[in-house]
Amino acid sequence: MHAYRSHTCGDLKAADAGSTIRLSGWVHRVRDHGGVLFVDLRDHYGMTQVLADSDSPAFAAMERLRAETVIRIDGRVKLRDASLVNPKLPTGEIEVYATEVEVLGPADELPLPVFGDQDYPEETRLAYRFLDLRRESLHDNIMLRSNVIRSIRNRMWDQNFTEFQTPIITASSPEGARDFLVPSRLHPGKFYALPQAPQQFKQLIMVAGFDKYFQIAPCFRDEDPRADRSPTDFYQLDMEMSFVRQEDVFATVQPVIQGLFEEFGGGRRVDADWPLIPYADALLKYGSDKPDLRNPIEMQVVSDHFRGSGFGIFAKLLEQEGTQVRAIPAPTGGSRKFADRMNAFAQSQGLPGMGYIIWRRAEDGSTEAAGPIAKALGPEKTEAIRAQLGLAEGDAAFFLGGKPDQFEAVAGRARTEIGRELGLIDENQFKFAWIVDFPMYEKTDDGKIDFSHNPFSMPQGGMEALEGDPLKVLGYQYDLACNGYELISGAIRNHKPEIMFKAFELAGYPASEVEKRFGGMVKAFRYGAPPHGGCAAGIDRIVMLLADEQNIREVIMFPMNQRAEDLMMGAPSEPTNEQMRDLRLRSLPKE
Amino acid sequence: MHAYRSHTCGDLKAADAGSTIRLSGWVHRVRDHGGVLFVDLRDHYGMTQVLADSDSPAFAAMERLRAETVIRIDGRVKLRDASLVNPKLPTGEIEVYATEVEVLGPADELPLPVFGDQDYPEETRLAYRFLDLRRESLHDNIMLRSNVIRSIRNRMWDQNFTEFQTPIITASSPEGARDFLVPSRLHPGKFYALPQAPQQFKQLIMVAGFDKYFQIAPCFRDEDPRADRSPTDFYQLDMEMSFVRQEDVFATVQPVIQGLFEEFGGGRRVDADWPLIPYADALLKYGSDKPDLRNPIEMQVVSDHFRGSGFGIFAKLLEQEGTQVRAIPAPTGGSRKFADRMNAFAQSQGLPGMGYIIWRRAEDGSTEAAGPIAKALGPEKTEAIRAQLGLAEGDAAFFLGGKPDQFEAVAGRARTEIGRELGLIDENQFKFAWIVDFPMYEKTDDGKIDFSHNPFSMPQGGMEALEGDPLKVLGYQYDLACNGYELISGAIRNHKPEIMFKAFELAGYPASEVEKRFGGMVKAFRYGAPPHGGCAAGIDRIVMLLADEQNIREVIMFPMNQRAEDLMMGAPSEPTNEQMRDLRLRSLPKE
Repeated sequence: MHAYRSHTCGDLKAADAGSTIRLSGWVHRVRDHGGVLFVDLRDHYGMTQVLADSDSPAFAAMERLRAETVIRIDGRVKLRDASLVNPKLPTGEIEVYATEVEVLGPADELPLPVFGDQDYPEETRLAYRFLDLRRESLHDNIMLRSNVIRSIRNRMWDQNFTEFQTPIITASSPEGARDFLVPSRLHPGKFYALPQAPQQFKQLIMVAGFDKYFQIAPCFRDEDPRADRSPTDFYQLDMEMSFVRQEDVFATVQPVIQGLFEEFGGGRRVDADWPLIPYADALLKYGSDKPDLRNPIEMQVVSDHFRGSGFGIFAKLLEQEGTQVRAIPAPTGGSRKFADRMNAFAQSQGLPGMGYIIWRRAEDGSTEAAGPIAKALGPEKTEAIRAQLGLAEGDAAFFLGGKPDQFEAVAGRARTEIGRELGLIDENQFKFAWIVDFPMYEKTDDGKIDFSHNPFSMPQGGMEALEGDPLKVLGYQYDLACNGYELISGAIRNHKPEIMFKAFELAGYPASEVEKRFGGMVKAFRYGAPPHGGCAAGIDRIVMLLADEQNIREVIMFPMNQRAEDLMMGAPSEPTNEQMRDLRLRSLPKE
Repeated sequence: MHAYRSHTCGDLKAADAGSTIRLSGWVHRVRDHGGVLFVDLRDHYGMTQVLADSDSPAFAAMERLRAETVIRIDGRVKLRDASLVNPKLPTGEIEVYATEVEVLGPADELPLPVFGDQDYPEETRLAYRFLDLRRESLHDNIMLRSNVIRSIRNRMWDQNFTEFQTPIITASSPEGARDFLVPSRLHPGKFYALPQAPQQFKQLIMVAGFDKYFQIAPCFRDEDPRADRSPTDFYQLDMEMSFVRQEDVFATVQPVIQGLFEEFGGGRRVDADWPLIPYADALLKYGSDKPDLRNPIEMQVVSDHFRGSGFGIFAKLLEQEGTQVRAIPAPTGGSRKFADRMNAFAQSQGLPGMGYIIWRRAEDGSTEAAGPIAKALGPEKTEAIRAQLGLAEGDAAFFLGGKPDQFEAVAGRARTEIGRELGLIDENQFKFAWIVDFPMYEKTDDGKIDFSHNPFSMPQGGMEALEGDPLKVLGYQYDLACNGYELISGAIRNHKPEIMFKAFELAGYPASEVEKRFGGMVKAFRYGAPPHGGCAAGIDRIVMLLADEQNIREVIMFPMNQRAEDLMMGAPSEPTNEQMRDLRLRSLPKE
């Protein structure tokens, strides 16, 4: 017999009754039923009930077992009494009568129990991650993550993509976040950087003539602490294709992502209709460039009804250039109580309040509009608003006014809140949309023109478009939104050096700066660059959605804490004097 | 029609004749055949011959095309004349008559041609890697590498292993080489390290209850320059299993590696017989712990024949304790000329020379032994040596004497040289062997006891073995040798803290040092650690063997040069003052 096991703890069935077997695993729980000891023995594959009575030579050893001790047991498989069969457990038809027990790995008193669902402080969980990982839900999340990545690889391979590893010790990549630096010992005073993303490398792979690249790529950013992201690194499905337009990328990505969500979504509905929503529409209708389309509410512009109306606040507001009034329809929200709650929400978001109209049954049986705005507007305009929004008795509408970029984000949050409060959101589904036509440039607070998203995207209309108003230039750039999150971001790249230099010039970067920061890539574009494009999908986010987790540390095997410390391994730590000497570095005292 | 292509450059066949098609790709070569222009158009998938005569509207544009320009062409597929069919090219039955050409990506004068096999200095190749990668042999190597890794993943998945990513920004891992450090901005004065290998993490994964782990793992070591290794990082197939013994690891690994070599070995024979060779035997027979078993030569100890013999040098030598004389049989090497050549080789290796015996046909037709050693030994001992080595007329034997650890390495090289010179090595095959029973400890030059290999291996005989002579303790540690290279190294781990502390104590490390350096892992072993073991296989080396390349930079997409510089991206480089301020670091002037 094998030294440690003839079966795993998930194997044994009724058909094995009578066999002599050997199992190894962790002592999940010990129960003493008056002279009969029960041990739930656990391994990666499952759980098996082991018992010994005082006749068993294993009894004495089993009495001394602590939780989480690793043991080997020899024993005989017995059918359980019909009344004791556990249908929830794959091995629930049998138990094992132990004849011999050997301790393979003893366990001290546990700082964190494995059995049970008791909550523990995250710092304890991270310091004893090897125990926390034995708990079923975290173990399952980590297995899910691995299976998701495996499935992604298979799906990409099936589409004839090839995976290439790009360098991890390299030069700074221009993603705009802070680099992690790595001092060079052979070149004192010089530093490598860990890549924020393989952006330049994947474009170079296209220029090198490989056609369809992907990588499950580690990306490194020295981020300030935030709850829902790792402070050091994350993984993305990075991909790039040559000789493609935007629609080719969409046609490639949808089957991969949709298939993935169907495979691992746990039965939640996966919408196959992925609309293309222009960025400007997304902000108007949803107040967000990553809208949650499970929420059926779509905002509308209702400025015309308020212009010159009796509702003075908006009428006056609309006299200023660039202002709008938008309505958030709230089907079934037509009660004073709800309107008040939303008003309070608006105040919590820093607004003075949120105007509303409620449509209710009048005493004469007809539909009447209520609330201060309805009164001020008069019945005709109120009715026109109702008709435009397609609302009816029992519904409400909320109104926000001003310059759109100043209230769009709050409007988006109000839309979410209204949908949630009214139970309009069917959470049991995944709804996707491609957000397209992102503007290339935006005006910064100090009035300058800067890139609003990725500087490497091809401007729609090419060089010609760059001769006009920069703020009107759209890019071949796209995001995939899912349930309110940005899952993917990508673009058709600007592969023509002259258009790239012009695009950077508009944003205030002289050619010398472009050469300096992106020299490798720009040089490559001078020797025959194919049109190309691609995208990157956030693996951690995908797994979080599939596992229904809010905390990124629930889907990473060995995460840092929020202060970017590894409490288990003790990182970061003081270097040795020898290391600092080798690197020709000195640490300065804290400021 | 698609904006860029209806087919790839590898698609078109005779059956497509008459179709109107669109292709995009690189101008591989332009030939002007007096009024007819031929362009070999290349993409990732293949090559298609495109032509235009002066009647074609594309003619003028095609005349101006430079090599490596990226173009789109529209045209009609034509059958080639039977005499012009190129059976070596998948598209060799057809050519495309171009009706329109568009330049998608122009190309400057090339610093490095893509067409042709001309050698270029490596620095030029690395600075223009995106051009070098377009060359067929490098392109093929990189595709091979990707396919090898894909196949490894499939084979590991098929054996129910799960892939997990372990942290890249972490604490120093105790592999004994130099760490790359990463300064922490949030914790000034402290540093992370890039992992030299995921050794501790994979053991923690086992302690966390996952059963079979693997990873295509990037490993980072700040190495001094050497031709055949990357100065910064390398990839390994890292794996670990719980509840296993050494033979379980072997049974898992062999089908993976053997299958891989069968799949990608290009028809070279893959030996299915993987012998287990104890370390001591490997050194004796092959002078190496990574023997090339394609070489049939096995060395033997022949001390007894020399002890007290007339060959004074060895006779005297053997009076010292711990000395031996070993013979390298050289079948078919029985000529004075060959013996002289080997003698010169020995001198090139720093030896005074290498004694030999040649067996040749005497004038009377019998077999006679010739050379100074034969003369000094006399016919009886010489004959006994011949019989022991199984040699015959036309063969030779070479002799080395002294303390084995002082001549074993040279003997190994001489064995290789003799096998090579005599053509005894069938290069058209892969021969594997597990080297086992490595000693745990060795005596250092200053007489101390230190670990000879991996300190984490379980000593054979456990705690009891550690009570005796450390130099006699063997470890459950193993390497896989293939054709003279170490492909894999692994061990059954020491999962018992008390045995680990004792093992380190013998090597002069107090418990406090063990706690400090491997605290995370040692802590984990106190809470129920399973017996476990595994190994790591060098991916770069495997690909080099399969691609038959000697230079590691031929199997890496974007390698560093030997001075650890990325000439294309310009790494490492000077940090900005702001970065140094953020990190609270100052660079010191060179010493």
